[in-house]
Amino acid sequence: MNFIGQHILSVQQFERADIDRLFSVADMMEPYARRQRLTKVLDGAILGNMFFEPSTRTRVSFGCAFNLLGGEVRETTGIQNSALAKGESLYDTARVLSGYSDIIVMRHPEAFSVAEFASASRVPVINGGDGANEHPSQALLDLYTIRKEVSGQGKSIDHLRIAMIGDLKNGRTVHSLCKLMRLYNNLYFTMVAPAELQMQQEVVEMLREAGHTVVVTDKLEESISKVDIAYSTRIQEERFASKEEADRYRGRFRLNQSIYTEFCEPNTVIMHPLPRDSRMEANELDNDLNENPNLAIFRQADNGINVRMALFAMILDVVDQVDSHSRSVNWYTNR
Amino acid sequence: MNFIGQHILSVQQFERADIDRLFSVADMMEPYARRQRLTKVLDGAILGNMFFEPSTRTRVSFGCAFNLLGGEVRETTGIQNSALAKGESLYDTARVLSGYSDIIVMRHPEAFSVAEFASASRVPVINGGDGANEHPSQALLDLYTIRKEVSGQGKSIDHLRIAMIGDLKNGRTVHSLCKLMRLYNNLYFTMVAPAELQMQQEVVEMLREAGHTVVVTDKLEESISKVDIAYSTRIQEERFASKEEADRYRGRFRLNQSIYTEFCEPNTVIMHPLPRDSRMEANELDNDLNENPNLAIFRQADNGINVRMALFAMILDVVDQVDSHSRSVNWYTNR
Amino acid sequence: MNFIGQHILSVQQFERADIDRLFSVADMMEPYARRQRLTKVLDGAILGNMFFEPSTRTRVSFGCAFNLLGGEVRETTGIQNSALAKGESLYDTARVLSGYSDIIVMRHPEAFSVAEFASASRVPVINGGDGANEHPSQALLDLYTIRKEVSGQGKSIDHLRIAMIGDLKNGRTVHSLCKLMRLYNNLYFTMVAPAELQMQQEVVEMLREAGHTVVVTDKLEESISKVDIAYSTRIQEERFASKEEADRYRGRFRLNQSIYTEFCEPNTVIMHPLPRDSRMEANELDNDLNENPNLAIFRQADNGINVRMALFAMILDVVDQVDSHSRSVNWYTNR
Repeated sequence: MNFIGQHILSVQQFERADIDRLFSVADMMEPYARRQRLTKVLDGAILGNMFFEPSTRTRVSFGCAFNLLGGEVRETTGIQNSALAKGESLYDTARVLSGYSDIIVMRHPEAFSVAEFASASRVPVINGGDGANEHPSQALLDLYTIRKEVSGQGKSIDHLRIAMIGDLKNGRTVHSLCKLMRLYNNLYFTMVAPAELQMQQEVVEMLREAGHTVVVTDKLEESISKVDIAYSTRIQEERFASKEEADRYRGRFRLNQSIYTEFCEPNTVIMHPLPRDSRMEANELDNDLNENPNLAIFRQADNGINVRMALFAMILDVVDQVDSHSRSVNWYTNR
Repeated sequence: MNFIGQHILSVQQFERADIDRLFSVADMMEPYARRQRLTKVLDGAILGNMFFEPSTRTRVSFGCAFNLLGGEVRETTGIQNSALAKGESLYDTARVLSGYSDIIVMRHPEAFSVAEFASASRVPVINGGDGANEHPSQALLDLYTIRKEVSGQGKSIDHLRIAMIGDLKNGRTVHSLCKLMRLYNNLYFTMVAPAELQMQQEVVEMLREAGHTVVVTDKLEESISKVDIAYSTRIQEERFASKEEADRYRGRFRLNQSIYTEFCEPNTVIMHPLPRDSRMEANELDNDLNENPNLAIFRQADNGINVRMALFAMILDVVDQVDSHSRSVNWYTNR
Repeated sequence: MNFIGQHILSVQQFERADIDRLFSVADMMEPYARRQRLTKVLDGAILGNMFFEPSTRTRVSFGCAFNLLGGEVRETTGIQNSALAKGESLYDTARVLSGYSDIIVMRHPEAFSVAEFASASRVPVINGGDGANEHPSQALLDLYTIRKEVSGQGKSIDHLRIAMIGDLKNGRTVHSLCKLMRLYNNLYFTMVAPAELQMQQEVVEMLREAGHTVVVTDKLEESISKVDIAYSTRIQEERFASKEEADRYRGRFRLNQSIYTEFCEPNTVIMHPLPRDSRMEANELDNDLNENPNLAIFRQADNGINVRMALFAMILDVVDQVDSHSRSVNWYTNR
């Protein structure tokens, strides 16, 4: 994969070598993402941050990543009353908006809408989430986090044991993450979900065909006792027919410090795509884990900056110029 | 007209010489608008992009035009819960907001609200659309597009033949465009609309008094057979009493490739202020026109960037500095 | 108080010496706030302008203040559908968002939410208004305005006579302003409100304990006859059970030019936190005061830029670098 000028629509575009290249650029972004230095490599460039579905975290993360490279951001934050609501096709929206910016991140509630948009766009488009379909930058930052967390323990992604926990049926992020992890060797997956919310059979098959082991279960404690990564997810309430139906599953799998201490190996990394549902009735990951050094959920969010900076830099072909456009930070920072 | 420091509220402010000057600056913006070069002439300046009515395309277009000149954009995207809703007068809003930026673009649902706002503003204000009244930058970009499209055919605006099609009664853009075209010589207008949605008599009179020919009709095919420009418009559903009433007219005039081939002269330019309504029941301009090289609708949107950059540069008096603050683009671009 | 790296959550953090330092930096910002010069001292820095409650004026004021220092702004403008609505705790929101920017301004409808957020944030947080609790930058800009207005008359804040008028019970700004003014000497307060909307007894006590005189009344005319400052406020409709209940008080205290001429001393300064309610039934400050040179309400809003620039510069420790990163303005400005 040649990132330059390309759309990023699906994790299926990535080969293992592509991921390696992306992650090494993401590593290179560390001093800029953490504010030890600043770069103006994209000074003058414009990101069209087109969110046709509300989002705070992903939208702001992409926007900040572009700002951290020195670029400007124009954005939209909802679909109401927009041209799409007046009967405009995605083709037209893409033809118009792609005349305004150098690159576009698009989120849209309909599956495959971003690919349709990209096919008419005159500038590269990154899928920022298209309904139940894909959210590739989330899967990439998850995998980047896994790699970073276990490398401190002298491990690589190959041969890892990972438990995925929660609403595996509706969780877009776990599907995409599985598709990426398929590219590695000899992984051991434990899919922990109520039967009705289990991982789709086709994903399980895909992993098995790629040579990985997949265990399907609805028991939490025993499943997290021998894993490197425990990846918890939220009940995707918005994908259920009603709040009441979602409530039947909310809070089914709760991980807290005492369960962790009793069942997990000492260095098991806890992940979550966020937001975690901290309401009493859900409480997927208890607050008493907040001081656990293996709780990687906020490092995950931080890593999103590195990965998104890397995507922008590679697509816009400025990787080699990042450092030469850099200087030291002249304001207070304790990060 | 001396653009420096002036408000742009209405197309009626423009004489033909003003338009000529504006368009020559818009031409000068071409390499910056198309990303062949970048300029930082407004580095440090702030646009207040105040949209008190939702809009994606116009808002983003103005914002990007300002960014392309090197400036920053602060914006607002709706009227709900704002100070205006707490009983604040436009006078107060203007006094306050004009202390925050160097120039303001304002859209507001009420006719003449932007002029009222501008009269209290301490910085120049551009009307980004005030309800049923005016949207001058749209009319200017339309005329700029007409000039550019026909100049390739060795024609100028004088003596052109133009058909305006659709909801001519409620279409703000066609009214403003007529007011601008009035300044040229010997034009031939064909107004194609159902009787109930025909162009107001006063606009027709204005054009005739200026020496132009105006034919009023409800027949599409014969009207587009001898024109240089076919300018189609959307049924302005939001100006009707109900969706049902709007539906009575939706889809009345449809242009597609086979009609174009059968009736139009070979180089007839197709325009539309966008968004075009591509739903089956409307389909004003069929998608099969998308490959027609005379479909100018997306070049229209692109030209909006040039015209808005020109307005900003002229009002803020930096035209002569644009090139001296420029440099080459250091990232990937295929535009 | 050492501003560097600190959260600004409450006016209670400020001692008189802190205010003096802040105001002298705010004075230093004058040429930048008024566009006589520009500075790029925060070029590359990012403000997270997180408004979880709609606001135009405060949000844009903070954003522009950061832009005027050369920084970038990423923002959010409402709580709907955000992660908070999916059950995310303020702790998590803070851990995530503070990885994206160098400093955060946060507004949130719940009292004390911003302090809770700040305790988990990895970057400094400024309270942009937390429900009925505090809005410290408003109180600071009010006091800065008072100091500036009366200094032209050869007075300082000590010994001033100030009338506060309107909904003193629900008016967050007057509470905070009283807490700041408490730090000065020998002030004379007249609290003008209907009995039901009078200033809380604890605020009155606090002022008296600090040695100030406080008169409580529901008579407007006599109260404004011997004051240096007449500070009018809006009926806080959103804090009442119903619009009808708020309407009972709306318009109770109206100040206009003829009342001013008849009752006030010649140089009485008129202030208001804005927005003023200019609807007929309210009309707190009549429009016929707009030409009165002592109407300071728009200078108040302008001063907000200086004070917010000063807060950013002090917290991010760039005060000493502002001038060395400055240059002249190269575009049209009449401010």
